[in-house]
Amino acid sequence: MDKVSLDKHTSKQFDEDLEDVREHVLNMGGLVEQQVTNAVRALVEGDGELGEAVARGDFEVNRLEVEIDEECTRILARRQPQAGDLRLVTAIIKTITDLERIGDEAEKIGRLAAQLSSQVTPRGAFQQIELLGRHVRSMVNDALNAFARIDADVALSVSKEDQQVDREYESIMRECITFMMEDPRTIRQMLDVLWAVRALERIGDHATNIGEYVIYFVHGQDVRHTTLEAMEREVLAAKERRRPL
Amino acid sequence: MDKVSLDKHTSKQFDEDLEDVREHVLNMGGLVEQQVTNAVRALVEGDGELGEAVARGDFEVNRLEVEIDEECTRILARRQPQAGDLRLVTAIIKTITDLERIGDEAEKIGRLAAQLSSQVTPRGAFQQIELLGRHVRSMVNDALNAFARIDADVALSVSKEDQQVDREYESIMRECITFMMEDPRTIRQMLDVLWAVRALERIGDHATNIGEYVIYFVHGQDVRHTTLEAMEREVLAAKERRRPL
Repeated sequence: MDKVSLDKHTSKQFDEDLEDVREHVLNMGGLVEQQVTNAVRALVEGDGELGEAVARGDFEVNRLEVEIDEECTRILARRQPQAGDLRLVTAIIKTITDLERIGDEAEKIGRLAAQLSSQVTPRGAFQQIELLGRHVRSMVNDALNAFARIDADVALSVSKEDQQVDREYESIMRECITFMMEDPRTIRQMLDVLWAVRALERIGDHATNIGEYVIYFVHGQDVRHTTLEAMEREVLAAKERRRPL
Repeated sequence: MDKVSLDKHTSKQFDEDLEDVREHVLNMGGLVEQQVTNAVRALVEGDGELGEAVARGDFEVNRLEVEIDEECTRILARRQPQAGDLRLVTAIIKTITDLERIGDEAEKIGRLAAQLSSQVTPRGAFQQIELLGRHVRSMVNDALNAFARIDADVALSVSKEDQQVDREYESIMRECITFMMEDPRTIRQMLDVLWAVRALERIGDHATNIGEYVIYFVHGQDVRHTTLEAMEREVLAAKERRRPL
């Protein structure tokens, strides 16, 4: 009996550990989402102070990453998780790396917004940037929801959104290049705008990565480096395998 | 006796596992280094075919990442490593992520080189790009050496090189902007050059990350998100702690 109750206890404690770390990832994700939201607002509204606040705020994102990373290492050492639990922990280690890099991109956008706020910049592309920002933010949100609910379908939808985001990014790029060519005096500022837009596009990529870790965790199948179609096939096939006969 | 020899055997097998995975990381690193070298050559020499070959070659880098990742998960599940061994495995999981992203940047440079090879591009900045490429390549090489010899001093030197690389990157950026302003018809091509240079700068960042994982592994201290000075202090302090009295 002792053995069984010890096992139970160990397992319960382990469940609590996993629950804790998942909650911490979601907290970190919430902060990162807020940073992205504020960075885009600073950029679009030309709010330099908000941009600087975002840049300063990245410190907290980094702190959370190191903390959760250590938490995961402790779980690996103490609980020696197997199979699905092990996949969850390694998926978390990867997820927080991408969250931290989303934070870095938000910091970059914040700094660029602060720089641009003191200059006269052709604002024609900014409406499109707001739209792109909204899409990217919703990708991050969906990736975190997929993680929270461990839902491979939502995770898959993130990859689909990324294709739309890439198209919007290309369109803004073209518009910025047109501005530059029409008035070469704007080149310096427009390049700052371009870097910010590029950073947004990369945030979309990181959200896609997080979605792929969720799919890996759910199906035990690595879907990185495959096409969207192959990913869809994999999620479908895994569902078929699980369907009761 | 049985117990002891079993332990020994287990431990020996474990040593072999770790040795294998380290060797695989170094093989992957060698391939990535070659990709960077070829990408820079394709860009500087305007060799479109080589650029396309680099872009196609990224497939193999991705394959190796997935393979080593699975190897690490197997080691975690079977050997349940503790302390230093556990730190090594988590450092490897992070290292291959950065190696894979270096591969992505090389792929990007390869594609841009192929695009640029068919156009007349002002080549004034290309000598500087070659120099930057050489530095970045040597950073990747140093990061891999630090990993191979588990040498925190070499790892630290990578971070120092990154400061020089950032200065060179800024200088090329300025030169490209001057070209654009002088002849707005070159804007499109010069942007492609800028993206390629940006990709090189990011390769330097990833090499720095790898160096930081080595320092973490050697000293058990997370040095990410700290200044270079703090990192130096940490490496020195750890040495003092180890010095025999």
